[in-house]
Amino acid sequence: MADHKILTVDLGDRSYPIVIGRGLLQGGFDIEPYLSSGSCLIVSNETVAPLYAAQVKALLGDRECHVLQLPDGESFKTMATVQLVIDELVAIGAKRDANVIALGGGVVGDIAGFAAACYMRGVSLIQIPTTLLAQVDSSVGGKTGVNHEGGKNLIGAFYQPRLVLIDTETLSTLSDRELSAGTAEIIKYGAIADAEFFSWLEQRMDGILQRDPDALTVAITACCEIKAKIVAQDEREAGKRALLNFGHTFGHAIEMSMGYGEWLHGEAVAVGMLMAAQLSGIDASERTRLKQLLVAAGLPTSPPPIKADVFRQAMSLDKKATAKSLKFVLLKALGDAFVTTDYPQSTLGEILDAADSGS
Amino acid sequence: MADHKILTVDLGDRSYPIVIGRGLLQGGFDIEPYLSSGSCLIVSNETVAPLYAAQVKALLGDRECHVLQLPDGESFKTMATVQLVIDELVAIGAKRDANVIALGGGVVGDIAGFAAACYMRGVSLIQIPTTLLAQVDSSVGGKTGVNHEGGKNLIGAFYQPRLVLIDTETLSTLSDRELSAGTAEIIKYGAIADAEFFSWLEQRMDGILQRDPDALTVAITACCEIKAKIVAQDEREAGKRALLNFGHTFGHAIEMSMGYGEWLHGEAVAVGMLMAAQLSGIDASERTRLKQLLVAAGLPTSPPPIKADVFRQAMSLDKKATAKSLKFVLLKALGDAFVTTDYPQSTLGEILDAADSGS
Repeated sequence: MADHKILTVDLGDRSYPIVIGRGLLQGGFDIEPYLSSGSCLIVSNETVAPLYAAQVKALLGDRECHVLQLPDGESFKTMATVQLVIDELVAIGAKRDANVIALGGGVVGDIAGFAAACYMRGVSLIQIPTTLLAQVDSSVGGKTGVNHEGGKNLIGAFYQPRLVLIDTETLSTLSDRELSAGTAEIIKYGAIADAEFFSWLEQRMDGILQRDPDALTVAITACCEIKAKIVAQDEREAGKRALLNFGHTFGHAIEMSMGYGEWLHGEAVAVGMLMAAQLSGIDASERTRLKQLLVAAGLPTSPPPIKADVFRQAMSLDKKATAKSLKFVLLKALGDAFVTTDYPQSTLGEILDAADSGS
Repeated sequence: MADHKILTVDLGDRSYPIVIGRGLLQGGFDIEPYLSSGSCLIVSNETVAPLYAAQVKALLGDRECHVLQLPDGESFKTMATVQLVIDELVAIGAKRDANVIALGGGVVGDIAGFAAACYMRGVSLIQIPTTLLAQVDSSVGGKTGVNHEGGKNLIGAFYQPRLVLIDTETLSTLSDRELSAGTAEIIKYGAIADAEFFSWLEQRMDGILQRDPDALTVAITACCEIKAKIVAQDEREAGKRALLNFGHTFGHAIEMSMGYGEWLHGEAVAVGMLMAAQLSGIDASERTRLKQLLVAAGLPTSPPPIKADVFRQAMSLDKKATAKSLKFVLLKALGDAFVTTDYPQSTLGEILDAADSGS
């Protein structure tokens, strides 16, 4: 039996567990109570399905089960791909008692989750994230959706899963680049909410990158605890949940401007966090610590060359923005973030000009 | 100032009013408190927009306001049309503080509502229904969505508006056929929940068809009261809300089999209610009363010729169905409905065979 930890996302009658353990896909946690009575569609991609779909099928017992392999990559996070999932649900005769099981990274989780939210106005959803980024961030909290030419995650739904099942063993097949990208979101949690965890990361980043099981479990659990707490307080991002977007206003603009998939989400967020830290005006020593941790994680620390007006235009599509102004998540200090529309315009200008000139 | 009644759909912090009155589009009710702070997109169609969009614009004051005219008809209730709405929201730079205002019948409300639900994971929505069917049924309760080749309303969301504004004056421009179709849903409310209202309809159907303002107001108010109560008890159709689908399992199958838009929704529901009444095994005298009321309303009472196996296949896509069985809303008596999977298979066979033979 695999050891595992269970956290809870507390949302009243829609509460659900996040189960974290090594080897969980080989058994050790009974997912049956989290399944609806109908058939199952495992939504995965061409990279992950060959590795893990058979194991997930085995967890489902003798239940009718289908596997849909999507193409792999952020560039496929579109309504057209959501339609593929819905077409497949229709093709297998899925009813309201069907189960959608998202097996893969953040892109698979976002697409499958949105399809589950829309199909018959909502069928049961289980998230089985297989990338570090999805395990620490995107699989928890119910944000689903796809990109539009007009902006990142512009079309979507808040739709909570019934269970998030995190097998840290799946990280053994993750590329180094994807692993690094995942650490960006881990660093984010330390930066916005937990200075002690940030310090721990400064000590243990090597362990994470070497895929030390204990370091991974500690980091994933810490992140999921922070996220579960914030989501329970503010499911639909009326307030505090926006803190989770630290680095994302700049980051989304980088992803969109470069073409979805060129920069991995975590890479763009890494640079975005540094830009946001600069706009925050925190101590230079803290900015240096953030930069050094990102470097240690193998993440980029300079934006790609993007014209300042293009950057600004891309940021204006940020979902936190109102018709009148951009909103940013800024830091008072490492471990303490806030949301604001009040920041020095001149500093923002300098940051974007520096990006523009490729410095 | 237009006289008006206000009902409330009681859903805690998502409660909203249904305002019913004659001439409300010319003023008399201040909608400003129900608007979010951003710009407005009035989503309408080529038939309704020329008649009423200017009046709705005037209600919005000097706020930035755009109008999107969709093609008219159930055959356009597709994801492609939802995409048009989302593209327009992007084009006008709509943010999370934007307002989508659905101005039209059930198709417009379903499309605009679903687009509002998905855009940035949800922006503010106001329903201004202009057909009888939308005023008594589809604009209230938060069901949004579009059709798929695989089934009616197969893709959608539960998404509540902030306000439903019903101007009965808009019914003056409705075609006789659309007006009749709307009465099918009115009759449904009597049949499932209110025998006294059913009797009232037997007396006053002529008044409704002659667009007598008082008769229309009484009927619309009665229907909205019943619907608001049921939705407040069961927003996401875990139980009692399914009663509102009386006649719809048969009806949706007719709509789908004939090609969306050939039969109006209300016409298909009319026939579906008679088929469901037959399956219910209620007194012949009550079936006769139902049939006579539908005839008085100018509605069809016989299904189009559809092969029994095609009919059955179409019904198997009903959202109430589970992987194992069809569910029907049946009557114990006029005014008293229940949901069941327990019904005489032989009677269902006879009903479908009769449809098959065009009798």
